[in-house]
Amino acid sequence: MRVVDLPEILAAIDADEVTAAIEEGFRRYSSGQAEAMAVGHLSFEDPPGDCHAKGAYLRGDDVFVSKLTTGFYRNDLVGLPTSNGFSAVASARTGEILAILHDLGQLTDLRTALTGAIAARLIARADTRVLGIVGSGTQATLQAKWVARALGIETVLVWARDPAKAATIGGEVVPLAELVARADLIVTTTPAKEALITAEMVRPGLRIVAVGCDTPGKSEIAPEVMAQARIIVDSRSQCLHHGDTANAVAAGLIDGNDLVELGELIASPVDFAEDEIVVVDLTGVAVQDVQIAKAVWTRVSVRG
Amino acid sequence: MRVVDLPEILAAIDADEVTAAIEEGFRRYSSGQAEAMAVGHLSFEDPPGDCHAKGAYLRGDDVFVSKLTTGFYRNDLVGLPTSNGFSAVASARTGEILAILHDLGQLTDLRTALTGAIAARLIARADTRVLGIVGSGTQATLQAKWVARALGIETVLVWARDPAKAATIGGEVVPLAELVARADLIVTTTPAKEALITAEMVRPGLRIVAVGCDTPGKSEIAPEVMAQARIIVDSRSQCLHHGDTANAVAAGLIDGNDLVELGELIASPVDFAEDEIVVVDLTGVAVQDVQIAKAVWTRVSVRG
Repeated sequence: MRVVDLPEILAAIDADEVTAAIEEGFRRYSSGQAEAMAVGHLSFEDPPGDCHAKGAYLRGDDVFVSKLTTGFYRNDLVGLPTSNGFSAVASARTGEILAILHDLGQLTDLRTALTGAIAARLIARADTRVLGIVGSGTQATLQAKWVARALGIETVLVWARDPAKAATIGGEVVPLAELVARADLIVTTTPAKEALITAEMVRPGLRIVAVGCDTPGKSEIAPEVMAQARIIVDSRSQCLHHGDTANAVAAGLIDGNDLVELGELIASPVDFAEDEIVVVDLTGVAVQDVQIAKAVWTRVSVRG
Repeated sequence: MRVVDLPEILAAIDADEVTAAIEEGFRRYSSGQAEAMAVGHLSFEDPPGDCHAKGAYLRGDDVFVSKLTTGFYRNDLVGLPTSNGFSAVASARTGEILAILHDLGQLTDLRTALTGAIAARLIARADTRVLGIVGSGTQATLQAKWVARALGIETVLVWARDPAKAATIGGEVVPLAELVARADLIVTTTPAKEALITAEMVRPGLRIVAVGCDTPGKSEIAPEVMAQARIIVDSRSQCLHHGDTANAVAAGLIDGNDLVELGELIASPVDFAEDEIVVVDLTGVAVQDVQIAKAVWTRVSVRG
């Protein structure tokens, strides 16, 4: 069993290679080749924190991956990172634990951002010039970087509840209504519990990648916006359970049978009409973790 | 993050200390202090194998534990251990991963055996002289060792489908009916799918610790035997879901409301009548993993 620390993990990452691996993972997930563990969760009260365990296996692979991530948001008060965790890579032939990638949760952050970029490229209009980032956390920073790179654009607008934090993302800080009016494509990355993007704000042709709404009780995109949109989901079953899609289904405004999975869109890209509103709802699935960990482990193990 | 390999783990184990820790874990579990993750599972077909992920936190503790174990039964054909895995010990205050105990599944084997010994001591009659072991696998060997030690007895009878394997346990190999007739306390450790211990075999005063029946579809003790017995379970909720208790409840022969948890029995030991049949049904709970991993980590981290 090899332990791989963060610097070696980061050195082993080729963003294009990982992006291709994640795309392949979604394709295989949507064609029924993935087996996933029940998601494990623990919550802590004093100080507040939580822990998630996820794992999955893509049938036919030589390895499978199980990860543990923790988030303790008061750690920054004592100078510690708020995220921690690791991914274990194990042999699907013998069960041996091959590697512990001690990534402090950064592989999860990166796979989420690269998936945002994959989704953005699939739904962006050809004339896309302005990216809007909603939120000011780690995902806001990473989505701004990777989505802008994927779309080859430079103009980034940012809105967050705290303007000082919004300014750290590196774009032009604007009011939310202005951001929605000016942006061609928006990435939402907040832990909001009430919808931020409402029907009055949106216009035909808007494209949205919704990343923040990943657990029950959260909401970023109003059900009335979802009702106007073509909806792509990372996981049909998960997005019917929680997230902006589930909220709109629960409100009776969309039909769960109309959902297209990201893996299906990757396999068969769609030429969306210019004036269509398109939303990709990303709640996070373990195949993303599998694919990024496999990509890292493949490079690390080859180097020896 | 410290990686602790098997020799260091084994050197850090004091069986009496771990036994006390597991007893404390069951007491706290039964008094509602444990939070457990959903159990994760993956299965593999070629070669056949499986993987389980479990994790739990005892409220108030400084650490929590998540473990991954794998079993690939054809590994012995290529000279590899069939069991693999690790336990991760993490801070419940910061979420940092403190240690990976790379125990190859041996902590699970040991905590299961020590729990069998705890259960045996709580239900054994004072005049217990003969231990019966049903099965010939790892748990048969370990239960024979630790239960005999806990009860201070020397006479061990063994039955298994394969007499040659039964002989490896180190006791007197006998037919199953003879084992049940002669033993004062029996430990069942098989993966049987049809009950082995039937109503015709048992007599008043028999004590049974049932270890093997840990997943749906397994059965070691006939429902008619369960119906005659006082039943102790490691986890009320889990034993109503699968195991010998669940089978007897499903058969309508026992009332799920009559179950006593092991943690309750540890907190308030019962002086069973001489002629009572008593069965302890052990399906395995994550607090056992938490307590053995904590005990190891406490010793290892003190040594530095």
